[in-house]
Amino acid sequence: MELLCYLNGSIMPLAEAKIGITDLGLLRGFGIYQGITAFSGEPFHFDDHWERFEKSADALGLALPRSQGEVRHALRTLIARNSPGRRASIRLVLTGGAAKGGLEHVPGRETLFATAEPTAPLAPELYEHGASLITHEYERFMPESKTTHYITAVMLQPKRKEAGALEILFTKNGRVLECATSNVFVVKDGAVYTPGADVLKGVTRAITLALAEKAYPTHEAAVLLPALFGADEAFITSSFKDIVPVVAVDGRIIGGGKPGPVTRDLMKRFTAYAHAH
Amino acid sequence: MELLCYLNGSIMPLAEAKIGITDLGLLRGFGIYQGITAFSGEPFHFDDHWERFEKSADALGLALPRSQGEVRHALRTLIARNSPGRRASIRLVLTGGAAKGGLEHVPGRETLFATAEPTAPLAPELYEHGASLITHEYERFMPESKTTHYITAVMLQPKRKEAGALEILFTKNGRVLECATSNVFVVKDGAVYTPGADVLKGVTRAITLALAEKAYPTHEAAVLLPALFGADEAFITSSFKDIVPVVAVDGRIIGGGKPGPVTRDLMKRFTAYAHAH
Repeated sequence: MELLCYLNGSIMPLAEAKIGITDLGLLRGFGIYQGITAFSGEPFHFDDHWERFEKSADALGLALPRSQGEVRHALRTLIARNSPGRRASIRLVLTGGAAKGGLEHVPGRETLFATAEPTAPLAPELYEHGASLITHEYERFMPESKTTHYITAVMLQPKRKEAGALEILFTKNGRVLECATSNVFVVKDGAVYTPGADVLKGVTRAITLALAEKAYPTHEAAVLLPALFGADEAFITSSFKDIVPVVAVDGRIIGGGKPGPVTRDLMKRFTAYAHAH
Repeated sequence: MELLCYLNGSIMPLAEAKIGITDLGLLRGFGIYQGITAFSGEPFHFDDHWERFEKSADALGLALPRSQGEVRHALRTLIARNSPGRRASIRLVLTGGAAKGGLEHVPGRETLFATAEPTAPLAPELYEHGASLITHEYERFMPESKTTHYITAVMLQPKRKEAGALEILFTKNGRVLECATSNVFVVKDGAVYTPGADVLKGVTRAITLALAEKAYPTHEAAVLLPALFGADEAFITSSFKDIVPVVAVDGRIIGGGKPGPVTRDLMKRFTAYAHAH
């Protein structure tokens, strides 16, 4: 099946979607990114994703060349064509477009594109028995914006795979921040904690926080590394992974090495919520 | 005249040179960059540029898909066609190529391209009377590699132009580092200083250091902000600008507001050297 994509207002075959080599997204890494899931034909929490996409665009001084309604419609078309009846993974990117003098952004030249593909689900064992993480000392650039600057994440993929880890956990000066493409939570004495600053506040993170608040004391607050290692439970959240229990970090066992009851409860609540929305 | 470029082994019209939207250079900012000048048909100090390009590639785990000889030949062709008889500005970029699973680099898929255009010379007044800088608190990501991560530089262009400044000087915790696309030097009591760590060590910087060493005590060492403001002279170096005197930083006058004798001498030495090589 030929995959379609969306580029600057048009639906077209992915294989034909090309961008000029003077695009600032390519030449200067000047762009923003959004990963969106679709459980059944509809981009999940699209309004929240769009809001964050707009915030990231504002932070870089980029203008969105197409309306929210047009993009939503385009994504629905891509999902229906590329991933009929299946969960889809959508990537939405906005760049500065053709550079002026190699370095300058000219408002109005922005490049907007989206891809959608059938989601390759994680191994069920990860949800049942938990995943492991490796750590890396790093704070994302403009952490509350979602730029296309993922060099560290891409560079560390071989190390992550060699370690059999699902994700790379960024830490800075003893603080737990976030994973390369996920947020992180810990559970201690029945309360739920997630870092509240210097991280990308993901849409799945926000949904999880709202679900947790209904049942547990829930805190957005700094999480130190000893608190992670001493946690009763830990888990990560992301649009493409939902909630995944974490049972080891850098080879050290967390929470007895098994997904804990709060994590399992939140996973159930998330699944129920996703089915209902 | 139709500009040509080089893409993955082929010389082709720039307008036709396009890259797929799943390229890691675009989707994840995963790429390296090199700016090279050509005074008269030949890429200047190409061996040095290539060596640094290789180092940046190694740092990111990227393989160079074409030989140094092939790329040199391609750049000569671009210069001859795009900028005959004139100084040329060359941009050379290597990216991770088509992503696997949206985030993984597959060795062997790299994208390599180059553009060349007639150099738009700076206003002669800048060389005669000196330029001004604005400062910004920032240390480049992987500072000794030249990645395509220039978001800060692109974002600050409007502020730079509004201030009438030539460049943005990055400082970190009171230390002078480098400009967005240049290195920085100061002169004090007849000696020449440039930061020796946490900066991109540019090719023009290296040539300038070598020329300075023949005539002045020359030091690669930390330069603190008070030392910049108290300097007798300051200047910046870059492949596209050569040596430009700096006479003001954030509106504060440096060295009496006029290019100093050491700077002028080094500019002459650089011009003589460039003509001879």
